[in-house]
Amino acid sequence: MTYTYLEQHIRCIPDFPQSGILFRDITPLLRNQLHATIDALASLLSDDEWQAIDAIVGVESRGFIFASALAYAKNKSFLVVRKPKKLPPPVNSVSYSLEYGQDTLEMSSQFVGQRVLVVDDVLATGGTLAATCQLCQQSGHSIEQMLILINLADLNTFTWQGLTPRALFRYGSE
Amino acid sequence: MTYTYLEQHIRCIPDFPQSGILFRDITPLLRNQLHATIDALASLLSDDEWQAIDAIVGVESRGFIFASALAYAKNKSFLVVRKPKKLPPPVNSVSYSLEYGQDTLEMSSQFVGQRVLVVDDVLATGGTLAATCQLCQQSGHSIEQMLILINLADLNTFTWQGLTPRALFRYGSE
Repeated sequence: MTYTYLEQHIRCIPDFPQSGILFRDITPLLRNQLHATIDALASLLSDDEWQAIDAIVGVESRGFIFASALAYAKNKSFLVVRKPKKLPPPVNSVSYSLEYGQDTLEMSSQFVGQRVLVVDDVLATGGTLAATCQLCQQSGHSIEQMLILINLADLNTFTWQGLTPRALFRYGSE
Repeated sequence: MTYTYLEQHIRCIPDFPQSGILFRDITPLLRNQLHATIDALASLLSDDEWQAIDAIVGVESRGFIFASALAYAKNKSFLVVRKPKKLPPPVNSVSYSLEYGQDTLEMSSQFVGQRVLVVDDVLATGGTLAATCQLCQQSGHSIEQMLILINLADLNTFTWQGLTPRALFRYGSE
């Protein structure tokens, strides 16, 4: 299944936020097709797969947009992964390398043992997604599935313990 | 109407993120009652009021959680207000003062003339909400309503051109 009726609302911006980067602007998609986009993302999992999920994990900040609406649509718990110092203690914390410098993500360690779906907007090098999966594991959750709006497939071959993220849109040389 | 069945999922954390602040932790609410919370927020507007709204404006980053799920639930456009340098040009930009220093918010200037509902999680001093309303006005939108999860009513008497934000939870001395 292709989603060209949705994909046409993603705008390509060359050299943003810096030279050499082709930025995928999803704001027209959010403006024009939010409901259909959430339903299309939801359709990437079967009913049985949805039944095996207790909670949806959203990554700050654009991941919140998709994770929250999916959690509403499928009536699931919503768990947040946030930048440092936003969540009150107790939290688990994972630091990871970026092209320049490093970043840290945090997740509450108070709520454990959920079967989770991890949701984010863009999968590029996979650093954020790997850190999120590590956080889920540290917090005692089992990762059932990963859903991504856009997979920039030339930049990663991301899997987590044999599990491959599913994406609505895939951009790559293949 | 009171929402004590939802309010019990908001945890009060003294002295976070700094001494003297009573932080309202909404993560248990998101975990346990996301769907009911969105429906309760939606019920603060009448059907006629919902019909007069084209788009929901969400403020980065926790505002995204409520704005996106509401936009899904009510099948509305979703417009984002973001921190600087996140949105590709052209954007409108508003700077405002914080207790220490200042902050800036941005909104696309490409999409104009919508009747909008502004959504955010917490209304404290009102600086963020005022900047968001200014951005909407600069972008040619008309602000129909404002919906807030938590109004810390001792910290503000916020109105925008005669319009008062509606809040699911109100904390104050009255």
